[in-house]
Amino acid sequence: MELIHLGHGSGGRMMHQLVREYIAPAFAMTSLNDSALLGDMPPGRIAVTTDSYVISPIFFPGGDIGLLSVCGTVNDLAVSGARPLYLTAGFIIEEGFPLSDLKKILGSMSAAADRIGVKIIAGDTKVVDRGKADRIFINTAGIGVVEDGVDISPLNIRPGDRVILSGPVGRHGISVMAERNGISFDPPVLSDVWPLNRLTQRMLATTKSIRVMRDPTRGGVATTLKELANDSGLCITIQEDQVEVPGGVRGACDLLGLDPLYIANEGILIAIVERDKADALVEEMRRDEAGRSAVIIGEVTEAPARTVLLKTALGGIRIVDMLAGDQLPRIC
Amino acid sequence: MELIHLGHGSGGRMMHQLVREYIAPAFAMTSLNDSALLGDMPPGRIAVTTDSYVISPIFFPGGDIGLLSVCGTVNDLAVSGARPLYLTAGFIIEEGFPLSDLKKILGSMSAAADRIGVKIIAGDTKVVDRGKADRIFINTAGIGVVEDGVDISPLNIRPGDRVILSGPVGRHGISVMAERNGISFDPPVLSDVWPLNRLTQRMLATTKSIRVMRDPTRGGVATTLKELANDSGLCITIQEDQVEVPGGVRGACDLLGLDPLYIANEGILIAIVERDKADALVEEMRRDEAGRSAVIIGEVTEAPARTVLLKTALGGIRIVDMLAGDQLPRIC
Repeated sequence: MELIHLGHGSGGRMMHQLVREYIAPAFAMTSLNDSALLGDMPPGRIAVTTDSYVISPIFFPGGDIGLLSVCGTVNDLAVSGARPLYLTAGFIIEEGFPLSDLKKILGSMSAAADRIGVKIIAGDTKVVDRGKADRIFINTAGIGVVEDGVDISPLNIRPGDRVILSGPVGRHGISVMAERNGISFDPPVLSDVWPLNRLTQRMLATTKSIRVMRDPTRGGVATTLKELANDSGLCITIQEDQVEVPGGVRGACDLLGLDPLYIANEGILIAIVERDKADALVEEMRRDEAGRSAVIIGEVTEAPARTVLLKTALGGIRIVDMLAGDQLPRIC
Repeated sequence: MELIHLGHGSGGRMMHQLVREYIAPAFAMTSLNDSALLGDMPPGRIAVTTDSYVISPIFFPGGDIGLLSVCGTVNDLAVSGARPLYLTAGFIIEEGFPLSDLKKILGSMSAAADRIGVKIIAGDTKVVDRGKADRIFINTAGIGVVEDGVDISPLNIRPGDRVILSGPVGRHGISVMAERNGISFDPPVLSDVWPLNRLTQRMLATTKSIRVMRDPTRGGVATTLKELANDSGLCITIQEDQVEVPGGVRGACDLLGLDPLYIANEGILIAIVERDKADALVEEMRRDEAGRSAVIIGEVTEAPARTVLLKTALGGIRIVDMLAGDQLPRIC
């Protein structure tokens, strides 16, 4: 089995060979130079984001770190209202990492980028000594364009607005946790890792007056809602029985004492929209693969300020706060 | 001493606090959201680059990983002919890393960005378990603009062109190596880590017909020249006695059996230009702090193709090739 050596990250012939034979062919790179020139940009404001992926394990039911590193950054752009166009990719690889695994990860990234319609245009590879990294870390930065008239911000949220959730919660975090701990469910819980850019473009084509969109990754739906309540200064109330929790996620959470609202997702979004537009938007979202089970889960009110309330199925009301840390570390 | 905990990277309250109290204030971030919108871009083509910094040790004579992560990416843009405008920053931090060190690194980044005139507009922080990273890794991606009329490419190199080196070689690699191994020189060898964007903008204001510029980082001057010879299909011959090797670098190299031409630099560049423009360009470069000791070190000929030749001080000729790996790993 061929393995990564320190020399693969050192600027010499081994590194050139690694980039030429493995990395550049997987992506749209026209040269191995350090900077890439973008083609003409469509009109609009340019949006930029970055994310590092340190997930353990790197292969999990439903995806791998490569797919995640493309979808995660594309989704950050998508929920900001941008059309994703370009990605950069920086690899930090531990000495001794199998080249066959690198090839698989690069293949996932390349296939995801093709499907999404983004180009990976610049890359960097560093190799660190054995024991100085956990197999492979990937950073991607994303560049996209926000069309004129789109204005996505929690400051736009108003009392009366409706809260939409695009799909079931908890699949990514539970699938990673299961793989990490050697637990298996029947049927298996697959990560929901999936690009959201088609869904968000469809939503923006329906109405440009979406107040805000967010993908509830680290910290889950609860943390994202709490961020939105804090940033808007308003109160968000959701109906517990409107939030779809898949059977496998529910079972794992019951067993392990986890709350599905805090589990990471990688293929769903929360949108807050004007009351009058909510029903039509949900209908339109359901036409997209990533929004099949979109549903209104709650609404925005004036008070209590900066608060998230959960109406339980039994009619109780519970305050939803951020966790101090997280239930499950390193799930993205 | 306050330390980084796993919870700082998990999306919950601890992470929000870390970002709000440490990371966002150091940079130009207007929000803690995932995507940033750029201001109006000046006319020209957009250039993009990315680099991960895994240097060990993270503090070294003349700089630290923070300064390096800003200058390195700025320099990649600068030598591609771009004016650097924006950076993103992704942090991977090992559990137990002192918050005071993080603060120092963020301060270096912020000060460097201010001095250079770039904005750090988007960030990401991940925390990994103790032993799963080497203290801190930083990825930066850079966005800049290349003015119309600037065309930097090794394909533009022609026989007769002159090769310019902007300053002395080997300081970064030797300073890091010394720090890593507890060796001290008197006077100490300081890293040359420094932004090159003012120098390259000055050069492009003098003549837009610069064929190519490169910063000889990993693999040093020798590797960069070999890349340029390969990419252009031509021969580059340099005069050994024109390449300035500082006394401390020379001493360290003699002692340890290293070749200064292969040692990493972080504050110099190689430029290849038309013969007739070389003298005037060197004169102009010397007016800039980063180009004080710019000098013509060689020339380009037709044959032997894809070859770098070194004329030694004693009149011999030696073929310069890439190393397989590198003399010193993890110097950037």
